[in-house]
Amino acid sequence: MRVRGTMPVVLRLGIVGLGYWGPNLVRNAAGSSVWKLAAVADADPARLAKAETAAPFALRVSSLAEMLDAVDAVVVATPPETHESLVREALAAGKHVLVEKPLATQAGAAWDLVADAERRGLILAVDHTFVYTGAVEYLREAIASGALGSLYGLDSVRVNLGLYQRHASVCADLATHDIAIFNHLLGERPEAVSAVSLRMLTDSLRDVAYATLRYPSGIHAHLHVSWLSPVKIRRMTLTGSKRMALWDDVEPSEKVRIYDKGADFTGTDARSASFVSYRAGDTHLPAIDSREALSKVLTAFHAAITDGTPMRSSGEDGAIVVDVLDAIERSSDAGGAFVQIDYGRSLPGVPR
Amino acid sequence: MRVRGTMPVVLRLGIVGLGYWGPNLVRNAAGSSVWKLAAVADADPARLAKAETAAPFALRVSSLAEMLDAVDAVVVATPPETHESLVREALAAGKHVLVEKPLATQAGAAWDLVADAERRGLILAVDHTFVYTGAVEYLREAIASGALGSLYGLDSVRVNLGLYQRHASVCADLATHDIAIFNHLLGERPEAVSAVSLRMLTDSLRDVAYATLRYPSGIHAHLHVSWLSPVKIRRMTLTGSKRMALWDDVEPSEKVRIYDKGADFTGTDARSASFVSYRAGDTHLPAIDSREALSKVLTAFHAAITDGTPMRSSGEDGAIVVDVLDAIERSSDAGGAFVQIDYGRSLPGVPR
Amino acid sequence: MRVRGTMPVVLRLGIVGLGYWGPNLVRNAAGSSVWKLAAVADADPARLAKAETAAPFALRVSSLAEMLDAVDAVVVATPPETHESLVREALAAGKHVLVEKPLATQAGAAWDLVADAERRGLILAVDHTFVYTGAVEYLREAIASGALGSLYGLDSVRVNLGLYQRHASVCADLATHDIAIFNHLLGERPEAVSAVSLRMLTDSLRDVAYATLRYPSGIHAHLHVSWLSPVKIRRMTLTGSKRMALWDDVEPSEKVRIYDKGADFTGTDARSASFVSYRAGDTHLPAIDSREALSKVLTAFHAAITDGTPMRSSGEDGAIVVDVLDAIERSSDAGGAFVQIDYGRSLPGVPR
Amino acid sequence: MRVRGTMPVVLRLGIVGLGYWGPNLVRNAAGSSVWKLAAVADADPARLAKAETAAPFALRVSSLAEMLDAVDAVVVATPPETHESLVREALAAGKHVLVEKPLATQAGAAWDLVADAERRGLILAVDHTFVYTGAVEYLREAIASGALGSLYGLDSVRVNLGLYQRHASVCADLATHDIAIFNHLLGERPEAVSAVSLRMLTDSLRDVAYATLRYPSGIHAHLHVSWLSPVKIRRMTLTGSKRMALWDDVEPSEKVRIYDKGADFTGTDARSASFVSYRAGDTHLPAIDSREALSKVLTAFHAAITDGTPMRSSGEDGAIVVDVLDAIERSSDAGGAFVQIDYGRSLPGVPR
Repeated sequence: MRVRGTMPVVLRLGIVGLGYWGPNLVRNAAGSSVWKLAAVADADPARLAKAETAAPFALRVSSLAEMLDAVDAVVVATPPETHESLVREALAAGKHVLVEKPLATQAGAAWDLVADAERRGLILAVDHTFVYTGAVEYLREAIASGALGSLYGLDSVRVNLGLYQRHASVCADLATHDIAIFNHLLGERPEAVSAVSLRMLTDSLRDVAYATLRYPSGIHAHLHVSWLSPVKIRRMTLTGSKRMALWDDVEPSEKVRIYDKGADFTGTDARSASFVSYRAGDTHLPAIDSREALSKVLTAFHAAITDGTPMRSSGEDGAIVVDVLDAIERSSDAGGAFVQIDYGRSLPGVPR
Repeated sequence: MRVRGTMPVVLRLGIVGLGYWGPNLVRNAAGSSVWKLAAVADADPARLAKAETAAPFALRVSSLAEMLDAVDAVVVATPPETHESLVREALAAGKHVLVEKPLATQAGAAWDLVADAERRGLILAVDHTFVYTGAVEYLREAIASGALGSLYGLDSVRVNLGLYQRHASVCADLATHDIAIFNHLLGERPEAVSAVSLRMLTDSLRDVAYATLRYPSGIHAHLHVSWLSPVKIRRMTLTGSKRMALWDDVEPSEKVRIYDKGADFTGTDARSASFVSYRAGDTHLPAIDSREALSKVLTAFHAAITDGTPMRSSGEDGAIVVDVLDAIERSSDAGGAFVQIDYGRSLPGVPR
Repeated sequence: MRVRGTMPVVLRLGIVGLGYWGPNLVRNAAGSSVWKLAAVADADPARLAKAETAAPFALRVSSLAEMLDAVDAVVVATPPETHESLVREALAAGKHVLVEKPLATQAGAAWDLVADAERRGLILAVDHTFVYTGAVEYLREAIASGALGSLYGLDSVRVNLGLYQRHASVCADLATHDIAIFNHLLGERPEAVSAVSLRMLTDSLRDVAYATLRYPSGIHAHLHVSWLSPVKIRRMTLTGSKRMALWDDVEPSEKVRIYDKGADFTGTDARSASFVSYRAGDTHLPAIDSREALSKVLTAFHAAITDGTPMRSSGEDGAIVVDVLDAIERSSDAGGAFVQIDYGRSLPGVPR
Repeated sequence: MRVRGTMPVVLRLGIVGLGYWGPNLVRNAAGSSVWKLAAVADADPARLAKAETAAPFALRVSSLAEMLDAVDAVVVATPPETHESLVREALAAGKHVLVEKPLATQAGAAWDLVADAERRGLILAVDHTFVYTGAVEYLREAIASGALGSLYGLDSVRVNLGLYQRHASVCADLATHDIAIFNHLLGERPEAVSAVSLRMLTDSLRDVAYATLRYPSGIHAHLHVSWLSPVKIRRMTLTGSKRMALWDDVEPSEKVRIYDKGADFTGTDARSASFVSYRAGDTHLPAIDSREALSKVLTAFHAAITDGTPMRSSGEDGAIVVDVLDAIERSSDAGGAFVQIDYGRSLPGVPR
């Protein structure tokens, strides 16, 4: 689909859903050099009216169906429980689809959508925005280059006050980010998970959760998510044998710290008093690419369509995350024990 | 044993073990107005020599046995695996005992020591230092007074680099603090625990652990402890229906923050768009008693002996913590599922 | 000009200058309920084109002259050296004017503009945005209510890296804010100033300055501004006899702290060892109005026109600031000694 | 005086004055491998008694005179107004002297003491402790190695609540540190100073001061000191053409940050829009020597006596600081203008 020469072809994009995240998509699409924001849809006329300022020349309609003729690709940014049918509708119309996380609320449905897109030769991608941030790009390279040594474990805390969702748990809302980031950083998908998910505010809403993901490589990654914290925390710690890294996404500029710190086991002799030695060297705060990740998501979605460049957050990556979310719920319901994760697709379903 | 008048009787104290924590005990005992530091013991002559400056007039001996004639009470500050026999020896000699945490490495042994002390009419106490800090005193009062509303949950992070111990896990070292604090704040003991305890640095040492404690009141308290973190974190969050509290013990002065923040469930109508409302008012940083907690432990130990004033950290409190540590290990070994905690003593074993 | 009833009349606004600050004005004017953004002007077609998205229905022209027929009031947001002639042109056409700080680059010119507006019965206001922030509103009330006791002094640090201006000093750029805030908080204007202004990067640009302002009440206020700092700092300290306040504008939410701290002089007896006692109580972080200050500036400008409500940042307030900036330069050129500030208007030129 | 071989000769030290700082000297001297703490003196018996624990084998006397026979060198840690006579007395008895800052309260007296020590062939040193910290050592090397590029300026803030002194200003108490550090970092002494020193709490005490020091190299260094601040701040910024450094001494471990940030003047063409470019690269937090600086002061004092190794804080360095303090007072009294500093000794009185 790529035209000759150096200029990429401009494609027409439609955005369905103008709630919490939609306006960010509109703003980035409107400012994109490879997308033309051709249409926006929402059932709420007030939201449509608000979009007029940001997208004065886009078609404004109340449903996906009304925009299908005007677009080459669709972003689905509606509530999670509506993803499945809207993605299916867009794919059936031959449109490429980028869908907000989570891809679907049921694991089976997620894999069906992946298969559907493949059958039709269309791109299905999930907006795991964080894997496109400068911080994750830096950390993935730090792992790949061996700068951290061999990785021991990951720990993530993602807590704040609200925003409660009626039809989704705090895991679907927040842990989705952690799982997508873990998988992308490690280049593998977890094989088992142990989780405790709590209902603090009211019996009908799971608003605090803890989960430990075990990966085939032996690495454990822990996540703590909450809608009921007095402070907003976004901290991920990467513990390696040579260095340790801390990613604090609340920091306005100094988001990543690389610590030349660690411990070394020296105690082969059981009687020696000192069996672990410690290192504490310099700390390094690298300059991080601060471009808006969402803009890079849209560019990558375009490249996947025109060039076939693999996405960091393909439909398959999204379905894997849904499988993990499902396993978290099963473990929690079963009393917290590790449960195996049976992925909807066994081969070669390993995230890049 | 209290003499007439207002002046407390001065008792003679012996300290066994001058390793990591011993010198703090020596310094506080030397500066105490109710204790005379009469003897110190350590098998290492170099440590004994160092104690000369701080305790020039104390008897310096190599073992507990050699100091028994010279003291009324003993502090046992040796490695955990030696606690049981040393406490037994001191009790047998008719001495009151304050022992460093954990009281013992085996749950059964801990309860035996408690029973032994009771039989002999002696005080057995455990140095759960943190429950004597100004921060814990403030938070316990904030819960008791209803300032936080009804309590939803507790979350504690206690991580740093090292210090690895050869014969103890990170839970025995660090989670002991969290469990003692949780129990004291809530005034109850947990009924079940789900835990994952990891070996990151080497296969023989448990150095990272996560655990969720479930209390009879329905409250859940989570702890995260690690010897392998690039930064030192000591943060406990208390989530209440009216207010939330954050205790950051790494802060030099502003250790406690009370947030007039919260969420209220308003969504009885399933179709209403807004079903949770949020509050965000002022934040209050109370002035906290900054006296050294260890000094208050020694004073409380003296008062327990002379007046019978109950300790916040009795031998029974210590044995309960050992039972919880044991349950954490069992849960982790069993794959992370919640396990019931069978306390060595069922009645009336509720911490004050 | 106010119509009957409760609804304010909507006025037509034109904005001249779409550089650094202009887009913020455009966004706030476009979202205002009392202004209609009727026209925008800039000599640069690229900037005009960019404004199309935010203000699709506004007239887009290249100069002030071309918009005069279409507006009731004008915001001048062009470089400082152009303020004088543009404000004069707008006033001559009978338009009310809100001008970016500083009002003018020359003290004499500033007062001429004030007199011109008065003669014509038009509102002239200056966009001292910070005096409309929730933090300044809170602090002014804390002073007025006596919560801080009697005020001893103010200290402000406003430093960051850049943005260098070719035709303005760091004082005209940054100290303008501090002077406007000081004057507004204290309700008086300084009588003398001592200043050192430095040229660090190159001999032609004053990029670092320190100044002490002495007020008739005896209070001293110090400011430190810099374009050459590795970190961005926005901190103002208010020292009172009863309490102290700290305003850290870089903090995302907890911007103001009220410390129940202080010192009391008790030393009438020259031989007493202790002659000062210290207090250290709680710290209070009030919830602060977080609405965008610029929006409140535009609303206040509208109210000044329609109701005659006095502005917190009138033309006279702006001219006073220009007089102080002039005195800072004179003091620095004269070797740093305090110089008297001779205001262009002596009576009753006291800021509200 | 150095004996053959590798072991330094142990000298006998006496400490006069056991008030605020004295106990730190006692502790470091007691733990020194090159000093024997032979005597302590204070007129207050309670302070002497307290020193018994830390220095059980030292002579305890009430005055300098009583210890002179028992020591080779003396540390004078009494209030500033007593320094002159005590140093004179010790020198007259042939003792080397380390004196707390400031060396004397009068500039003339300070230089007399320097001359007296030289005449007698004795070491006179001043305890400018901060120049022995790991942070200052690192920063001095960063300047010397060119890592910061050419230095533009220094800025220091040293404020907190108290401790007021009856006979000394906040400058003598706190600015002394800044001046000593500035001189040591730059390797030169200031030629002029502009200062404003304020009396906030009461008319008899100067408790807040601002001063700008101008060095022969053209560098300006600014200091802000206060006894009346709600928070404790210890921050020094070093602005260089290549990098910038921030030293935050309140940080427990990460005290120094090196920023690869800066601005470059590119604007030779007066009409070019962009005349300054900005750089923002990585930030580096070097591991800093964390040994107690006071211990290094005592070791350096010993080396100066036995080996003739020059001190970083000689008597001459101390007299220079007193001259600067005197100039700060003169500038402030004269209305804030820059005053020349006439040093008591013109050649070769340049700090190393």
